[in-house]
Amino acid sequence: MKVGGVHYRTIWPAGDGASIHVIDQTRLPHEFSTLRLTRRSEVEHAIRSMQVRGAPLIGAAAAYGLCLEMIENPSDGALAAASASLRTTRPTAVDLGFALDAMRAALEPFPPRERRERAWKRAGALADASAAACRAIGEHGLALIEQACERRPAGEPLNVLTHCNAGWLATVDFGTALAPIYLAHDRGIPIHVWVSETRPRNQGASLTAWELGQHGVPHTVVVDSASGHLAQSGRVQLVVTGTDRTTAHGDVCNKIGTYSKALAARDNGVPFWVAVPASSIDWSLRDGLGTIPIEERDPREVTRIVGRDATGRRLEVRLTPEKSPALNYAFDVTPARLVTGFITERGLCSATAVGLARIHGRSHAD
Amino acid sequence: MKVGGVHYRTIWPAGDGASIHVIDQTRLPHEFSTLRLTRRSEVEHAIRSMQVRGAPLIGAAAAYGLCLEMIENPSDGALAAASASLRTTRPTAVDLGFALDAMRAALEPFPPRERRERAWKRAGALADASAAACRAIGEHGLALIEQACERRPAGEPLNVLTHCNAGWLATVDFGTALAPIYLAHDRGIPIHVWVSETRPRNQGASLTAWELGQHGVPHTVVVDSASGHLAQSGRVQLVVTGTDRTTAHGDVCNKIGTYSKALAARDNGVPFWVAVPASSIDWSLRDGLGTIPIEERDPREVTRIVGRDATGRRLEVRLTPEKSPALNYAFDVTPARLVTGFITERGLCSATAVGLARIHGRSHAD
Repeated sequence: MKVGGVHYRTIWPAGDGASIHVIDQTRLPHEFSTLRLTRRSEVEHAIRSMQVRGAPLIGAAAAYGLCLEMIENPSDGALAAASASLRTTRPTAVDLGFALDAMRAALEPFPPRERRERAWKRAGALADASAAACRAIGEHGLALIEQACERRPAGEPLNVLTHCNAGWLATVDFGTALAPIYLAHDRGIPIHVWVSETRPRNQGASLTAWELGQHGVPHTVVVDSASGHLAQSGRVQLVVTGTDRTTAHGDVCNKIGTYSKALAARDNGVPFWVAVPASSIDWSLRDGLGTIPIEERDPREVTRIVGRDATGRRLEVRLTPEKSPALNYAFDVTPARLVTGFITERGLCSATAVGLARIHGRSHAD
Repeated sequence: MKVGGVHYRTIWPAGDGASIHVIDQTRLPHEFSTLRLTRRSEVEHAIRSMQVRGAPLIGAAAAYGLCLEMIENPSDGALAAASASLRTTRPTAVDLGFALDAMRAALEPFPPRERRERAWKRAGALADASAAACRAIGEHGLALIEQACERRPAGEPLNVLTHCNAGWLATVDFGTALAPIYLAHDRGIPIHVWVSETRPRNQGASLTAWELGQHGVPHTVVVDSASGHLAQSGRVQLVVTGTDRTTAHGDVCNKIGTYSKALAARDNGVPFWVAVPASSIDWSLRDGLGTIPIEERDPREVTRIVGRDATGRRLEVRLTPEKSPALNYAFDVTPARLVTGFITERGLCSATAVGLARIHGRSHAD
């Protein structure tokens, strides 16, 4: 995607064979800046602090983190330890484990002296594949948007509600939930996006609004609580979100509040679709409720917020009384029964064990 | 209720017969300060700017606003014009119209020279009646809490989720949704409140958390999106909210996000109760959807937020990209079908036309 007319991915090797660049997402929307990371521990810090975030991007970052480790120490022990350490940076997204498993499978059979070069190649291939999957999700989702548009009165845009950031910034490129929206906009389909701000970290208000704005897609920021009223009053025709972990039976674990949006969509007959790259599927899980670890983050993300003051300074303010405790669950589970369908890199499918297995060419054993 | 050990109402006549005092709720939770208002226009500003807010308190403030007008000009024309002007300050809450109608009925039959004194008396009586209604809601709601507690494992507190602020600060005294919670806590019933922060103005995080803290009630602040996960994971046993306007058939118009909480409660079998003083009922309305005006407030409430910085200074920060528009719907409608029941000053009743009519001794004509 383009930032100020220049094409960027969210993560890329520096070219010196010894470091990578990422966009520092904690500085957005107020400041676009990139970071150079040279050590695996810096990658881990970037993931934990959410300088890089979004399930597909976390996967790519972890893969590159192993590249940096292989420069310092390509031994079997270091490979295993670095993988284990990277795996603990965020508990919910399955892409992280997917990327680390793919890297280990590509490196372990080979002697340590070959691993550095092989790591860069494999990580690059994983990043390319992730971007290609997003591009394919965009194309399959576009058909959905075109269909929905046919039912709109002439001249009325299609209003799509999304939550959190499942856009370009959450992935290596293109986005998942936003990929079809960018394609539709580029093809001249009138589309307007309701951006749910996504407290506590406001990835909607700060990241989704920013990237839609960079691309010129009409959008409006609303508070998370507004989705019920929007659906109820006929102001939204389609909901599309991303997923951090999808079970084999179609339950979706995604940013806290996704479940509420699915309930509002269902109660008002609005289709609720989820963009699901294969890398987000946890084939080992059947039910999402109670089985997927729900990350609890620092309560300070709830009690404080970062913004820009009148002079342009970026600062943090406290929102709650000093003595009031807070809890910060980062994800929730949307049961498959509330999901209209999945947009995958292989096409659309139902949010069921059969639908997922069939589209991925797997045998479905209940 | 007590603040720092001193008993306060949220609004009271100054005693000079020429002004009133209110708590400036825009300064909370960081600063407790009161305002002296001497003109009707100042009352209107206080309501519009939400220095005073909450449906029952808005009603009391409007009544006192007419007192201040009667000092300056007790004529028929001024009474009618001031009522009309006060009525426009907020569009959704019905208490406002209820209080203004009651004041006009008490003043219009009398000559202008008597109106000043009669206005103070009637406004005082309305405020007392409003506080008494809240107290009665507390007592009737207590029975509900006691019942719910009996089903809890020994030693486990009852977890009640609330939204926005339907507490002491939203009323003249005691609160509506929080009144039963205060009574339960005072009687030694172990109770814990999930405080939904209530973006964009954060009345949960700033007002409900503050007043629960002042009273010593255990509570935890969560983002609005967390209610689905809390209900889904068995962490909430009861939801209680207030209402700004209740239709004769039991639809509830309340702070944006209330509807989403009702959906989450329904999907997880959690009882969803609404505290409904008679002053909040609009007997003229059957269906809430499409008939109740939903206030749209300044989008700056979404794009910016006020907090306290590290040095203790209160300031506003911007959250969104400069060019991203926002919309700020302040209320939504929870259909009666999602409401388990109403806690009224006359007892508990079903959220139906029959239930409401019966408890208020009205004939029910569908």
